[in-house]
Amino acid sequence: MLSKQQIKDINRLKQKKYRYQEGLFIVEGIKSIKDFLKSDYRLHTLYSTVDLFSTKDENCEIISEKDLARISSYKKPQVGLGVFRIMDEPMPKPSKLSLILSDINDPGNLGTLIRLCDWFGIRNIYCSKKTVDPYNPKVVQASMGSLSRVKLFYTDLKSLMKKQELPVYGAVMDGEPIYRKKLPENALLVIGNEANGIADELYPNIDHRISIPQFTSSHGAESLNAAMAGSILISEFRRRSFKG
Amino acid sequence: MLSKQQIKDINRLKQKKYRYQEGLFIVEGIKSIKDFLKSDYRLHTLYSTVDLFSTKDENCEIISEKDLARISSYKKPQVGLGVFRIMDEPMPKPSKLSLILSDINDPGNLGTLIRLCDWFGIRNIYCSKKTVDPYNPKVVQASMGSLSRVKLFYTDLKSLMKKQELPVYGAVMDGEPIYRKKLPENALLVIGNEANGIADELYPNIDHRISIPQFTSSHGAESLNAAMAGSILISEFRRRSFKG
Repeated sequence: MLSKQQIKDINRLKQKKYRYQEGLFIVEGIKSIKDFLKSDYRLHTLYSTVDLFSTKDENCEIISEKDLARISSYKKPQVGLGVFRIMDEPMPKPSKLSLILSDINDPGNLGTLIRLCDWFGIRNIYCSKKTVDPYNPKVVQASMGSLSRVKLFYTDLKSLMKKQELPVYGAVMDGEPIYRKKLPENALLVIGNEANGIADELYPNIDHRISIPQFTSSHGAESLNAAMAGSILISEFRRRSFKG
Repeated sequence: MLSKQQIKDINRLKQKKYRYQEGLFIVEGIKSIKDFLKSDYRLHTLYSTVDLFSTKDENCEIISEKDLARISSYKKPQVGLGVFRIMDEPMPKPSKLSLILSDINDPGNLGTLIRLCDWFGIRNIYCSKKTVDPYNPKVVQASMGSLSRVKLFYTDLKSLMKKQELPVYGAVMDGEPIYRKKLPENALLVIGNEANGIADELYPNIDHRISIPQFTSSHGAESLNAAMAGSILISEFRRRSFKG
C-alpha cells in the first residue's frame, strides 16, 4: 500500500517544477513503460498492480488498483506507472535531418511530433526554451514510448541556428510549395508555435521558407496544426531519399 | 441568466443520445462559431457574454461568464457557445477524392482529419457507423470550424465500397510504399481504427494496399496515428495533381 506521502510525491511529478527538483518523471501505459525499460532511461520505481514487467529488481512495487488510480493521470489506469530518472545528456551539434521546435505549446502536438521523428528516423529534436516540457505526462502519453528513443534538447535556438552549417528550412504560411522544392537529405526543419508560428528572432537564420499548398479557396481551414504540418513536411524530406 | 433547466438541457447535448433526440449540437470558440454562422448549419441559440457575433436575430442570449462556465466544455470558456441544428443531408455518391474512415475512435483524430480534408479540398468523408460522432464536442473543437465546411456521412461502408467505381486505396502496415505509387486524382482513401486498422469486412474491396515507409529499425515507433497517417497520405494524393 502506498502512504499518503508517497501518493503526494508521485502526484507532484505532474508539475514541471517538482519534476526537475526531483529529477524524475512519470510514464504510464504498458507499451510505453516497456519501451522506457528497454531504453537508456533509468528506472526509479515501478508501481504495478500485477507482476507484468519482470524487471527483477527491488525498484518494483506491487500496489492495489485503488492506489494506482490515486497516482495515475489516466481515467482508466493501465496496470502500471513507472517513475524514471530525467536524463541530462550533452547536446550534440545537428548533423543529420533534425527538427527544430519554436515554442510548441500543446503537449499532444509535441508528443505526436516525437512519435513522428521516431517513425522517420530523426534522432534529435531541438526545442526553444518556451516549448512544452517533454516530461509533461500528456507529452509522454502522446509520444507512445517514442520519447524513450528520440532525444530532445532545450536550448537557445537563435545561437544554435547561427552556429551550424546545415541549411535551415522554416514552415511558414507564405513559403515556396514544398512539393516542387529540392530538399537535401540533411537539414534543419523549423516548425513554429500553433498560434504565432516561428519566433521572429529566428527568421534571419531561415534559408528557405516552405509551405504546404492549400487546395481550397480562402474559405477553407486557416492552417494545419503543428503535428499535421510536421507529418507532411518530414515525409517530404524523407521521400526524396527513399530507396525502396 | 440561464435557468437550471436550460443549463441541464445544454449540458445534455454533450451526450450523443440527447444530441440526436434534440437534433442539436454545441460549438465553442469564437472562430468556430463564426464559421458555423457563415455555413449552411442553422443556429438554434447563441449564448454569449458579449455582443460579439452580430447575428442580429432573436436567437442570441447574453449571459454572464459564470453561466457560460456552467455550460462550456472548456476549462477557459471563450466568450460564447452556439447551439446549432444537426444537418441531415442525402448522401452523395463518391465522385472525387474522398476519405473513408473505418471505426475511428478518437475525437481528436476525427477532428484533425476533418480539418485536414478542409485544407486539401476534400468535401466528403464517409464513416463507418462505429466511427466517433462528428458532433461530439471534442471533435467539433479539434476540427476548428472545418466541420462547418466538410460533410460527413455515416453509412455501411461495405455496401458503399461495393457499389462505387473509383479505385479504393487502403492504408495498411504492409502495403506498397506510397512514395513510389502512381495515384489517380479521384479515389477513395480508407483509413482504419487506431488500434485495429481497417475492418476485416472491408478488405475484399480494397484495390491497392498502401503504406508510409518507416525509416527506423524495428525498434522504432510501431505506428503513426490515424491523423498523422491521414496527413501524409492525403498530401501524397494531392501533390501529384499540384499545379503551382
